[in-house]
Amino acid sequence: MAAEGGVSLDDVKKAFERVSPFIHRTPVFTSSQADVRSGRSLFFKAENLQKTGAFKVRGALNSIIKARETRPDIKGFTTFSSGNHGQAMAWACQLFALPCYVVVPSTASEVKKNAIRGYGAEVVECGPKPSDRNETCEQVRKEKNLEVIPPFDHPDVIAGQGTLGLELLEQVPDIDAILVGVSGGGLSSGIAVAVKALKPSVKIFLVTPKGKNLAECLKTGKRPWENPPQYLNTIIDAMRLQQSGFLTTPILIEKAEKEVFEMSDEEVIAGMKFGFERLKLTVEAASGATIAAALSDRFRSLDPTIRKVAVILSGGNVEINNLPW
Amino acid sequence: MAAEGGVSLDDVKKAFERVSPFIHRTPVFTSSQADVRSGRSLFFKAENLQKTGAFKVRGALNSIIKARETRPDIKGFTTFSSGNHGQAMAWACQLFALPCYVVVPSTASEVKKNAIRGYGAEVVECGPKPSDRNETCEQVRKEKNLEVIPPFDHPDVIAGQGTLGLELLEQVPDIDAILVGVSGGGLSSGIAVAVKALKPSVKIFLVTPKGKNLAECLKTGKRPWENPPQYLNTIIDAMRLQQSGFLTTPILIEKAEKEVFEMSDEEVIAGMKFGFERLKLTVEAASGATIAAALSDRFRSLDPTIRKVAVILSGGNVEINNLPW
Repeated sequence: MAAEGGVSLDDVKKAFERVSPFIHRTPVFTSSQADVRSGRSLFFKAENLQKTGAFKVRGALNSIIKARETRPDIKGFTTFSSGNHGQAMAWACQLFALPCYVVVPSTASEVKKNAIRGYGAEVVECGPKPSDRNETCEQVRKEKNLEVIPPFDHPDVIAGQGTLGLELLEQVPDIDAILVGVSGGGLSSGIAVAVKALKPSVKIFLVTPKGKNLAECLKTGKRPWENPPQYLNTIIDAMRLQQSGFLTTPILIEKAEKEVFEMSDEEVIAGMKFGFERLKLTVEAASGATIAAALSDRFRSLDPTIRKVAVILSGGNVEINNLPW
Repeated sequence: MAAEGGVSLDDVKKAFERVSPFIHRTPVFTSSQADVRSGRSLFFKAENLQKTGAFKVRGALNSIIKARETRPDIKGFTTFSSGNHGQAMAWACQLFALPCYVVVPSTASEVKKNAIRGYGAEVVECGPKPSDRNETCEQVRKEKNLEVIPPFDHPDVIAGQGTLGLELLEQVPDIDAILVGVSGGGLSSGIAVAVKALKPSVKIFLVTPKGKNLAECLKTGKRPWENPPQYLNTIIDAMRLQQSGFLTTPILIEKAEKEVFEMSDEEVIAGMKFGFERLKLTVEAASGATIAAALSDRFRSLDPTIRKVAVILSGGNVEINNLPW
């Protein structure tokens, strides 16, 4: 099988071998009430219960282990992310007692910085512009002779996130479709590579905040976004970046359904509430978005032969003192 | 093996056969942070993910199925409970398309009444005194020729709740201790019957709100409580009743450790927050109490040979619009 965007099914399988000993095989939950509302059988993949509370450890861990296979003398790692990828890198580096430097805008909340420090990494503050992050990260890399693992646009990160797709197919082999959120596109493209290679009939439906305009991208086959990268005005803090990646987007163009579910803040909050109240799970806004999409009238009106649908709950890192309702 | 309070291991095993086809085998979660804080290996039994959001369906379902084995012509059921047992009875009766009447004080919240109605049962309102509930329930029973299933003081209810203990031992066979909350005592006594019969070395530690005075009861071997039954001033809505039952208490006196963990509201809230933030689970106050006990200094100072401890998260029915922080 040819590699897609530099990532093949074989890469995802190898990633699965690398990361499995260290991560949770997260459970899949059902809800009769969700089934009634959606008119289908929904399978909620609870990656909010993953180590560090999000899927990001899959990609971070695969990248770190693979880098050390080829360069055993590696000194440590750096990345730019104030969110779940930053925590995941910190956690994964701590596993191997390797130094980790996470570049974070000085404007990020203390809660996020402390979560990264809590896993033993050093927080390096930078300016608020997207370009500030890359520049500071590059500077830290050179100074300390580190390896950079970006949050999504890297074949090993994509392959690592794709392990969620392999795990899901083991747990629910006969799914007809998957609902997965897209920000940079690492998780969705990784899942698409793995699942489409093993079961080409499974439809991958993408979920985004309003204003991302991913539907146009999928229709035209081109990345339509302005540069420098813009941030969206959305409650989904893990999905603020408008652009998806250079490696990830072509995979999505090739493998995902053209129908994109753009969710409003109001819908996302309702999805989060369903997660807390009915699924009894702490879910962050990004997970609320996929729940909301699964329960939406638009999804209900899709092809009725789509019976079994996996809904990816990507993470559960939310400030519980500051819930959006 | 002699029956204890009318309940034997064999009763619990038969209950397990009856209820297993209908309920979830709820997962067990670990948390490295919880292990660090407690100095032990903790196993959180997530019964908040059970059908209707609490363990109560185990006892309700066992009682209903067993009653129909002996009286196939049974017309329906009634009970008195504004909380999780009321919902559980409603849900279990709906499974078999049997009428269910749940007696609830008129002062109970509309949220609770609607949850019961949501499972297809009829809510019958009564006055606010504990004695009003029994009287109204008895009246409904006679009028409509129903069977009463009380919330805890019934051998079939105790045996049903005990199935959680069997399930737990299958999932974590080598536990040294269990932390379980006590209100009426159905869950704790059922677990004690099952677990102590199979593994007598496992210690059962009980968790209650402040003021229940269960420690005195366990020490003296007598039920010390005032009549009529009093309600405690506690944030744990599922544990307001001061008295434990007539059938359940002797089982606890015989089988539980004398050391009781009485938790303050402040501790319970901190336990709930740990559940939401770290375990990523929606937990009600009763579950917050067992988490708080597991993470308490007093528990940390217990015998260090107690290594593996199961912490029962009994339910997750909490008003998420009105969290206590």
